[in-house]
Amino acid sequence: MTVSSSLDWLTRGTSDLFPHQPDSQDPRENLTQLLQTTDRPLRIKLGIDPTGSDIHLGHSIPFRKLRAFQDAGHVAVVIIGDFTARIGDPTGKSEVRKQLTSEEVRANAENYLAQLRPILDFNTPNRLEIRYNSEWLGKLDLSQILELLSTMTVGQMLAKEGFSERYDQEKPIFLHEFLYPLMQGYDSVAVEADVELGGTDQKFNIVVGRDLQKYFGKTPQFGLLLPILIGTDGSQKMSKSLNNYVGLRESALSMYSKLEKTPDALLKDYYELLTNLPLDAMASNPREAQKQLAIEVVAQFHGKEEALKAQKTAQEIVLQGNTAAAASVPEFSLAAVTFPLKLFYLLSATGLCKSSGEGRRQIQGGAVRIDSEKITDVDKSFETAEALTGKVLQVGKNKFIRFVA
Amino acid sequence: MTVSSSLDWLTRGTSDLFPHQPDSQDPRENLTQLLQTTDRPLRIKLGIDPTGSDIHLGHSIPFRKLRAFQDAGHVAVVIIGDFTARIGDPTGKSEVRKQLTSEEVRANAENYLAQLRPILDFNTPNRLEIRYNSEWLGKLDLSQILELLSTMTVGQMLAKEGFSERYDQEKPIFLHEFLYPLMQGYDSVAVEADVELGGTDQKFNIVVGRDLQKYFGKTPQFGLLLPILIGTDGSQKMSKSLNNYVGLRESALSMYSKLEKTPDALLKDYYELLTNLPLDAMASNPREAQKQLAIEVVAQFHGKEEALKAQKTAQEIVLQGNTAAAASVPEFSLAAVTFPLKLFYLLSATGLCKSSGEGRRQIQGGAVRIDSEKITDVDKSFETAEALTGKVLQVGKNKFIRFVA
Repeated sequence: MTVSSSLDWLTRGTSDLFPHQPDSQDPRENLTQLLQTTDRPLRIKLGIDPTGSDIHLGHSIPFRKLRAFQDAGHVAVVIIGDFTARIGDPTGKSEVRKQLTSEEVRANAENYLAQLRPILDFNTPNRLEIRYNSEWLGKLDLSQILELLSTMTVGQMLAKEGFSERYDQEKPIFLHEFLYPLMQGYDSVAVEADVELGGTDQKFNIVVGRDLQKYFGKTPQFGLLLPILIGTDGSQKMSKSLNNYVGLRESALSMYSKLEKTPDALLKDYYELLTNLPLDAMASNPREAQKQLAIEVVAQFHGKEEALKAQKTAQEIVLQGNTAAAASVPEFSLAAVTFPLKLFYLLSATGLCKSSGEGRRQIQGGAVRIDSEKITDVDKSFETAEALTGKVLQVGKNKFIRFVA
Repeated sequence: MTVSSSLDWLTRGTSDLFPHQPDSQDPRENLTQLLQTTDRPLRIKLGIDPTGSDIHLGHSIPFRKLRAFQDAGHVAVVIIGDFTARIGDPTGKSEVRKQLTSEEVRANAENYLAQLRPILDFNTPNRLEIRYNSEWLGKLDLSQILELLSTMTVGQMLAKEGFSERYDQEKPIFLHEFLYPLMQGYDSVAVEADVELGGTDQKFNIVVGRDLQKYFGKTPQFGLLLPILIGTDGSQKMSKSLNNYVGLRESALSMYSKLEKTPDALLKDYYELLTNLPLDAMASNPREAQKQLAIEVVAQFHGKEEALKAQKTAQEIVLQGNTAAAASVPEFSLAAVTFPLKLFYLLSATGLCKSSGEGRRQIQGGAVRIDSEKITDVDKSFETAEALTGKVLQVGKNKFIRFVA
């Protein structure tokens, strides 16, 4: 790859790249210079919050970018924010910052990283560094923390998106919240990041990282911001709670069925951000582009063969379904039932069978499939909702539901 | 002493005593109850800032109150703020918070305490505890500091006097400044203070201490606030830099000459705050009250005999002086000369003698006195300005100057 085509790939889909010369025609000029003048692999930082472990395509975008840098010979430095996860939110008011034990954090982090195996390069030597930030944050004492705090003013902090609105609306901002951007910034000092990746909502924190690196006499990092992915509903940020997401753990069929309905307005963004295909190779017909996108994304996680199989199953479901159901597979929320759970009961609970008894008979008769795999064990049972999320349960040729969380 | 007369003495001159019942006629009700129901000595906290060491009568007021509590059987807990003094102001912008070494801090603290010997009871067992706050602040880690910070909101902190004005005027407030009130408050947690003494400017910090004690499951302290002493100029807060102060180290004559000119409007406050005399024993004639005050205060630091001697010398100076000089002894700023310095040169520099040569002759002739002590060593020299500050230099019977910093 030439420097130029490599640069195109490294910056594809980027929302912002800073700093750049204010008078420059090309915002990538500074990054180009950094790449050309640095005779060692760059250190590309990306932080993750190990309080949850289910990740979706929206989360995958900066990791895909991290992979692009790995492929260009640079080092992906993944920071596990275990320090903050372990202390949680001292006020106990934040749902987001619940306190976790070290074991929970480590389990979440491993779980998170496992889902990234199809995206990141874990194998090439010296291309991946996984760091827990308690390594350095746990060692800070009060005088060092006073020093960190002294690098910023209240006014600068209150200018941060999120804080300014809350302050204007007289909603309480607790003082410790001001430390989080500084802690994230100090991570950049500790790992000597050359570039930090993040969503557009991370600009403030990445700038704090730059300022702290300067304060501690290091070269300040670049910020490379990526768009926040809109969910499959076409309107809101992709999120598990809004149920407009495609999880990295979903089955090929589930992923495929969601992606082949990608709203037309999002097709270009999804294609640019979620596939490795050249931009000019996108099908001009939106229906074709949906399929192309779905196949391509599913193939990344399940391989091309599974992707094609999922496409075939999805088509059969549509063809076999009655007219009303043809447009989509109805969804069934797993929140409505309690686990562990027998399959025959689930057949009744979903309404696919009139009773548990009919459910048993249909299993015995070989009419029940999950993601097109026939289930004949009449005592088949499920321990958790996760084992089913995203899968399609089918009875006979024309009764389907897809499980959602 | 009865409980009631003891309480009168403990609360004499107090500006505020909190908390008190909002509907109570007597703001001392809660303190009375605390004193009556606690079957152990109370722990009375007072913090000092060991960045300087020269202290004046304004500083002495809370220490006098501390002594009152000691005399009533309680424990004076003097906190040396060595932690903050050692880190200074990380921004380097504050003149007040210059960074000191541990040795400097310890020397300052010892120097400070030495000046308090006439005020505090250093001898009765179990009446005085001197603590350095690095003992507990130095051990805090990031998670504990986040917890401290989480107990307050930005809005609460910006309501603090000093911060609110600066924020409104868009003057920078550095984030670490928010930690200082919390650090002072945490001192109260660490020493388990029952009462904290301070100037009226300390109310916010003492309230933070109460809140932190509650947060950490301890009984919150009372706050006992004392007025900020107006200086001898009768208008501004007593301060070394405004040269309207009476230093605890000044000679009897210097102290006396300043105090016998106490502005009439301040006489009652000075009498109430700086003497142990009953309030109704104050002379009704202001001229008499000035002398009474001056004798009483000087006696605290130099003994009654020296106080009376100073009074006599001061009267002689006035009587001997010409009419123009009678009102006051002219002042000479020691900032105008460089040390070490010979006395004969100083006689010339101050204008008391026409030349160094005349200075030598006057010394030899026995006409030169410092604070009424005759100096006959013609080679007498001074190493530092401090050795002279506040003293009166006299040549013959009617030439005087008083040295100021």
